Amino acid sequence: MAAARLDPEERRAQLVALGVASLVDHPLEALTIERLSAQAGVSRALLFHYFGSKQGLHHAVVLTARDAMLHASEPRATLEPLARLRDTLSRLVAFVRDHRGTFYSLVRGAASADAVVRELVDEARVIHAERAIAVFVELGHPDTALLRIALRSWVAFAEEMLVDGALSTDLPGDELVELLVRSAQAVVASLEAGVASA
Amino acid sequence: MAAARLDPEERRAQLVALGVASLVDHPLEALTIERLSAQAGVSRALLFHYFGSKQGLHHAVVLTARDAMLHASEPRATLEPLARLRDTLSRLVAFVRDHRGTFYSLVRGAASADAVVRELVDEARVIHAERAIAVFVELGHPDTALLRIALRSWVAFAEEMLVDGALSTDLPGDELVELLVRSAQAVVASLEAGVASA
Repeated sequence: MAAARLDPEERRAQLVALGVASLVDHPLEALTIERLSAQAGVSRALLFHYFGSKQGLHHAVVLTARDAMLHASEPRATLEPLARLRDTLSRLVAFVRDHRGTFYSLVRGAASADAVVRELVDEARVIHAERAIAVFVELGHPDTALLRIALRSWVAFAEEMLVDGALSTDLPGDELVELLVRSAQAVVASLEAGVASA
Repeated sequence: MAAARLDPEERRAQLVALGVASLVDHPLEALTIERLSAQAGVSRALLFHYFGSKQGLHHAVVLTARDAMLHASEPRATLEPLARLRDTLSRLVAFVRDHRGTFYSLVRGAASADAVVRELVDEARVIHAERAIAVFVELGHPDTALLRIALRSWVAFAEEMLVDGALSTDLPGDELVELLVRSAQAVVASLEAGVASA
């Protein structure tokens, strides 16, 4: 059988990929050793060997799904700052729409009872925020605590817009992207209006 | 003793108030029947009688803290829409700064392992969003699905700004309020720029 030719790392990666694919239709909580065992046609003992527990399986699946999202939206360093933000968001919107349940699981993973899942999801937020901060600092905005707080908060805004706007409406992707870019610009402009009026 | 003169409802309310007060310094998870029993000088049996379990105690405490926040920021119907939004946010910022840990627990309650706590916190978000939607609809903006999604997302933005901006910085309250008002206006304007350019 083909499966017999895979080495343990490849076998494990294949099982994780199957778990990630299950997020498209089912929430993370529905992913159990039993279900993956039946679906993959491998023994529960082998899954316990690879992942230790259901929690271990969840951590591997969330880590892989998260890194796929971050990779899919990796900024292109050659682009000018605003074009880079727009391009990153375009690819993020495409990822969200191509992997609907996956993104939902990632965003709602922040509400997971599992501290490791929450941390994995939170790290992605920090990375999204750092990408946005880099854009505005390159555009000449001072790298202040308030700019960082505001853009971290904008990531929370963008996540909600992506979950509700990308998944529950048929708003064209490019309009959603423009809305997100303009909202980031507006948030940053709000900070400076504050300074100017102070 | 004074305690003996309280009827059961008053006694229960007093115990809930003690639990809410504990959120200022300690996260919700630290609130146990044992700790409240020691702190209030009442038997664990009485606390089990009132709340059934630690979960029951947590639900009562989160409900009371949440309703205190919603009450403290209740919109004043006599004010014009934007003045009403500004006034509501001013009182919310004051509430957050007066009850630091409480608000943090409410916002982070969205990440609670307890489904009832998550639901109680989510209901508060829906109410905050409805208040903002009412403001912009009264200002003449069409009550569309996109307006609702955008203002629900703005609530997520505002929560992060309140947690990080109100609690981790010494930014004056009125600047934080102006920033939140301007960001809501900017988000709504972004939607219409989208329609205009479409």
